[in-house]
Amino acid sequence: MHTSENRKAVVLVSGGLDSATVLAVARDAGYQCYTLSFDYGQRHRSELDASQRVSRALGCVVHKTVVIDLRTIGGSALTDEGIAVPEKETEGVPITYVPARNTVFLSIALGWAEVLHATDIFIGVNAVDYSGYPDCRPAFISAFETMANLATVAGDGGEKFRVHAPLMNMSKAEIVQLGTSLGVDYGLTVSCYQASSEGQACGLCDSCRLRRQGFAEAGLLDPTKYYK
Amino acid sequence: MHTSENRKAVVLVSGGLDSATVLAVARDAGYQCYTLSFDYGQRHRSELDASQRVSRALGCVVHKTVVIDLRTIGGSALTDEGIAVPEKETEGVPITYVPARNTVFLSIALGWAEVLHATDIFIGVNAVDYSGYPDCRPAFISAFETMANLATVAGDGGEKFRVHAPLMNMSKAEIVQLGTSLGVDYGLTVSCYQASSEGQACGLCDSCRLRRQGFAEAGLLDPTKYYK
Repeated sequence: MHTSENRKAVVLVSGGLDSATVLAVARDAGYQCYTLSFDYGQRHRSELDASQRVSRALGCVVHKTVVIDLRTIGGSALTDEGIAVPEKETEGVPITYVPARNTVFLSIALGWAEVLHATDIFIGVNAVDYSGYPDCRPAFISAFETMANLATVAGDGGEKFRVHAPLMNMSKAEIVQLGTSLGVDYGLTVSCYQASSEGQACGLCDSCRLRRQGFAEAGLLDPTKYYK
Repeated sequence: MHTSENRKAVVLVSGGLDSATVLAVARDAGYQCYTLSFDYGQRHRSELDASQRVSRALGCVVHKTVVIDLRTIGGSALTDEGIAVPEKETEGVPITYVPARNTVFLSIALGWAEVLHATDIFIGVNAVDYSGYPDCRPAFISAFETMANLATVAGDGGEKFRVHAPLMNMSKAEIVQLGTSLGVDYGLTVSCYQASSEGQACGLCDSCRLRRQGFAEAGLLDPTKYYK
């Protein structure tokens, strides 16, 4: 019915490895990409610099950062300074889980998409994360899409909002391979939950461990700079 | 199975007439109310003072205001200074519609509810507004509820999140009558889209017109102070 050529998409960009890959996928599919990041009171604020670097390097049309202070509700090691980031694997849902974060981020992406007359939203969730984060599974994405089309004026019209999660079923190694084939410079990205202000990584948190393992399994050079 | 006695609920409070009534309904049902407001860059910032006054007067446990700058995405007369608030009735969806606003607000309420171990969320949407705002209809509330239970760790457990919209099918006159019977002091509330910093109302915008008409139809004294 329609081609993605010259269509607008809102792409959630965190500055990390997954969302950089998603942006490359969306661009490769012909979308004009409007990238969206959040200054939500996170510890790893150097990801905001990374979001901008990545957005520019991958040719976004506009990059915006929305300020939303999730420290007000707290409840996560990422938004509450009183809770430490774990440096080894833990049981159950990690304390780095930010309650309803993807729901909040997708909601704001939906609002911006409606303003832009865009109907496509891209997010870098994948099933590896689902082991701990419920808002990374296919059923969640699908339920969000249904809700989005009832929530908006645009969704009421002929064209429906679509939430794309192209990494959903990929391993970290496959993601790194895909991004590399699309020209992503992972040296621009920051994944660490407690990165230094220069964007150097701890190498110990969950996010660092998954990233490191991904490059190793893919047989690719890990460009990350570690401080620990 | 469970009683609302001593259960926690997150109640969205805007400082206006509807949400004050919802807070009174939730308290009357025995909930411990945690009220949530948003400093989202709105024109009518005196509603933030009203939110606090209303929350206190109706005995909330905690009142929080989350900062989220929706001016970054714009697209509404309420969040974009370049778009004027209409002073007479317009065709179609009003320009005061803020794209995805209720989705964003409910998402943050969901996050806080999860932090508080609360499963009940109250919102003051009603079908009168649905004529213009898609995120005020029953199908939207129901789809949000489904999504919320897939989005969260808490929703995955035995207890499910519920989104209560007790005003859904009420007229403005019925809402005013209900609130009055529950002891709401509507003199504390601000509904106007372009209220003065002292909380005085224009009397001309959609929100003022609906409110004025509600008091008139209910045969109750309108305590609103108008500046125009």
